[in-house]
Amino acid sequence: MIEVAVGIDIGGTNTRIGFIDEAGNSHAETIMSTGEYDSASDFIKALNATILVLNEQRKFKLLGIGVGAPNGNYYRGTIEYAPNLNWKGVIHFAEELGKLNDLPIILTNDANAAAIGEMIFGAAKNRRDFIMITLGTGLGSGIVVDGKLVYGHDGFAGEIGHTTVFYDGRKCGCGRRGCLETYVSAPGIIKTVKELRKAEKYDSPLMKMSSKKMSAKLIADLANERDSLALKAFDVTARILGKKLADCVAFTSPEVIYLFGGLALAGDLLLRATRAYFYDHLMNIYKGNVDIELSELQQHNAAVLGSSALIWADYKQRSGNA
Amino acid sequence: MIEVAVGIDIGGTNTRIGFIDEAGNSHAETIMSTGEYDSASDFIKALNATILVLNEQRKFKLLGIGVGAPNGNYYRGTIEYAPNLNWKGVIHFAEELGKLNDLPIILTNDANAAAIGEMIFGAAKNRRDFIMITLGTGLGSGIVVDGKLVYGHDGFAGEIGHTTVFYDGRKCGCGRRGCLETYVSAPGIIKTVKELRKAEKYDSPLMKMSSKKMSAKLIADLANERDSLALKAFDVTARILGKKLADCVAFTSPEVIYLFGGLALAGDLLLRATRAYFYDHLMNIYKGNVDIELSELQQHNAAVLGSSALIWADYKQRSGNA
Repeated sequence: MIEVAVGIDIGGTNTRIGFIDEAGNSHAETIMSTGEYDSASDFIKALNATILVLNEQRKFKLLGIGVGAPNGNYYRGTIEYAPNLNWKGVIHFAEELGKLNDLPIILTNDANAAAIGEMIFGAAKNRRDFIMITLGTGLGSGIVVDGKLVYGHDGFAGEIGHTTVFYDGRKCGCGRRGCLETYVSAPGIIKTVKELRKAEKYDSPLMKMSSKKMSAKLIADLANERDSLALKAFDVTARILGKKLADCVAFTSPEVIYLFGGLALAGDLLLRATRAYFYDHLMNIYKGNVDIELSELQQHNAAVLGSSALIWADYKQRSGNA
Repeated sequence: MIEVAVGIDIGGTNTRIGFIDEAGNSHAETIMSTGEYDSASDFIKALNATILVLNEQRKFKLLGIGVGAPNGNYYRGTIEYAPNLNWKGVIHFAEELGKLNDLPIILTNDANAAAIGEMIFGAAKNRRDFIMITLGTGLGSGIVVDGKLVYGHDGFAGEIGHTTVFYDGRKCGCGRRGCLETYVSAPGIIKTVKELRKAEKYDSPLMKMSSKKMSAKLIADLANERDSLALKAFDVTARILGKKLADCVAFTSPEVIYLFGGLALAGDLLLRATRAYFYDHLMNIYKGNVDIELSELQQHNAAVLGSSALIWADYKQRSGNA
């Protein structure tokens, strides 16, 4: 019987489920709706049923369920005040799911899960100190110090997306202003394009494009075709990200900062420019000792891999063959 | 024979040496000059001789030597490019000192030593996750995660004083601009007074005071007498510090941030105002879970205590009674 860890990636629209073996191979996977469940309890029941059905067909030995969720709290197994989910307040997710089966359940936020995934299955296999930055609708982060993910006092460490870059800057979903993720994220770069085209004329199809048609992917495609406005938007984004990442180094002195997500993969546009601003802004004592690299996790199932890695990391540690 | 750890606090002008027992009591102490030694080797020889002389008189069992030094590197036992010391480049301090005696030697930067000191002898005795901020000529920091000081990949973690608050801000000794310590430090608050009095008139003796006469202590004394310019300077300083500390929470989610140093002790002026800005700027998920407090280390020998704590922490860990 193949041993697998169940990896769950909860998103605002859909939830992905995968059965992942020790080497990171997916043996079964499926997608279910998140958005159509107004009640978290109903969702949790449906999720458990889906896992059982997936296993009925294939008969795996399930080692546990790892859950990556927005605003997931590792210590409490809760999802707390997640702005992009239907379920308000504090959801005791791990506890409720645990009542429906007898598997170990580990929950954390999606970026933390990605960091563990990178460490177990990706580029960070031999790294003791690194930071994972996930770029998508928001900017998530997971910080690893001396081989362990930093959860902090209350399980909410690693919210680099909500550190400030401009004190009176853009309004953020968290209620404050000027957070990094309001600039460095898919919606952030779209906003930057709009600001740039208001301030100056560019010879670019983006000048008159409606908001609905615009996407980070499109801006990246145009930038790769040397569109001046798209290039400028990437430059602005890279400058903000590069400078902030230089600050991040001064906290935990990582060996590598990994970038993950569609925006990070825009050719090497973002990586190259971010690196340049990063090195330029980095304090002398760190120069030559830290780099920015792309994640090696596969885009399509990274979050599922990362979530399953929560279980694998725990399992390996407990069985002493970490 | 009383067991003591030798604590060494290396400053630009003087070096303090203390023999500290397990409870944090000092059994012998002395001061020697740092500034008069142009050669690090000569200084190290003199330091070793001073320790031996101090012990010849009292016959302690020396468990080891803990050294807190500006730009000290824990992994390498080096002092690297310290701007306020006469010795340029990389000094292999622990190695050189180790050749002159057979004691264990642990070296780190002064703020890290203070953090360990707070954990072993001070307010952080039962804390697993906290940040220590030392306010003096500069702003130093030590970050503790899950009961361990964060050294990072290269031993230089925890340089919060050199994270940016204003991208085109004041010139910093590190060669960059806008670092936190150019605002929040003794020289920083003096600069703030000068900027404020240039921009606006205040009814204050500080308006016409020469730079030489001005000190952070004097500004604090005046603020405590309700001097409008001094109060404004403290408010500006507290706002910058409070907002930046709110950002710090988003990295490692500490339970407490401790402030240490003369500036921190200005009555509760700085503490009260910093707290207000801190809570105001803190992300929702952290509210109620983190506080700013004053260090409980005694001012006059905190750095020596902290340095000795490097040895005590190591000794306790190895003898299994941590």
